[in-house]
This record gives sequence, structure tokens and C-alpha cells, in this order.
Amino acid sequence: MVKVKVFVTLKEGVLDPQGKAVKGALHSMDYFEVSDVTIGKYMELTLEENVNIKERVQEMCEKLLANPVIEEYHYEIEEALQR
Amino acid sequence: MVKVKVFVTLKEGVLDPQGKAVKGALHSMDYFEVSDVTIGKYMELTLEENVNIKERVQEMCEKLLANPVIEEYHYEIEEALQR
Repeated sequence: MVKVKVFVTLKEGVLDPQGKAVKGALHSMDYFEVSDVTIGKYMELTLEENVNIKERVQEMCEKLLANPVIEEYHYEIEEALQR
Repeated sequence: MVKVKVFVTLKEGVLDPQGKAVKGALHSMDYFEVSDVTIGKYMELTLEENVNIKERVQEMCEKLLANPVIEEYHYEIEEALQR
């Protein structure tokens, strides 16, 4: 089995109201050192080993996991896990 | 400025309906090699440099960014960014 970590974040310039809200909340809790917050998604997929994992994961990201219009993604493929 | 990446995931044993839904969607798209999906949050904080960053970030996670009852978190502090 292979573990893949997928990170999805908003593209530069896309409004991030959730990040803004969290920043506001942190300021109201006296964490004034926080100058910016962006919020994204983090997914862990467990996959059966496969010849073209990279290509398949990229397809999954483009088609389902990320919205390529407003989001960008990257992923890390981890060494095989024990069954 | 310092960039901190925060990863929040559900604890083992906590139901993850969102992950289940994504797994179901991937299967319906013929990605049958996916045996498990878990969904979490990924946050990037930009902070002003501070003596006790580690401690402050840990506090932010415990108090606001993660729900320590059902979620666990980890974070990575990146080298200083240029202003």
C-alpha cells in the first residue's frame, strides 16, 4: 500500500474569507503576530500499489479533489506501507 | 516573517463521513485502487518573528485551529521569509 498526501490551497489572488475569519479570531485572542492565514485541505489517500500512481493521483486531483479554476494542489507519495 | 504549516486531522477511530464520500466518488470514477481517504485541514500562518513561536503556535492550535477532543495536529515551522 502507498500513502499519498494531497494539499489543496487557493490560488494567489483568490479571496479566502475563511482565512480572514481565522486571522480575525486569532487577533481577538491577542495573537497579533499573525499577519496572514490561508486555509486549505489536506487529504491522505491509501492506495494499492500501481504502476502509474503519479499519473492516477494527478487525474484524481484534477477531476475531483481540487477545483483547478481557483485551487492549486501538490502531493507527496510516501514509501510503501506494510499491509 | 516566519511561515508555519499546520495540519489538522481527525483522530483514529473518529468517523470521517467526508473521507468516505470522497472514497465513494473516486470508486465511482473507476479509481478502485483507493482503499482509504481521510480529510483534514491545512493552514498556512505567516507570523512575525517571536521568541517563543513554537509555544504560541501550539496554543493557537489547542485553542482555535484544532478541536483537541476529536482532532490531532502537527505543524512545521519554516525558515524565515524575506520581508
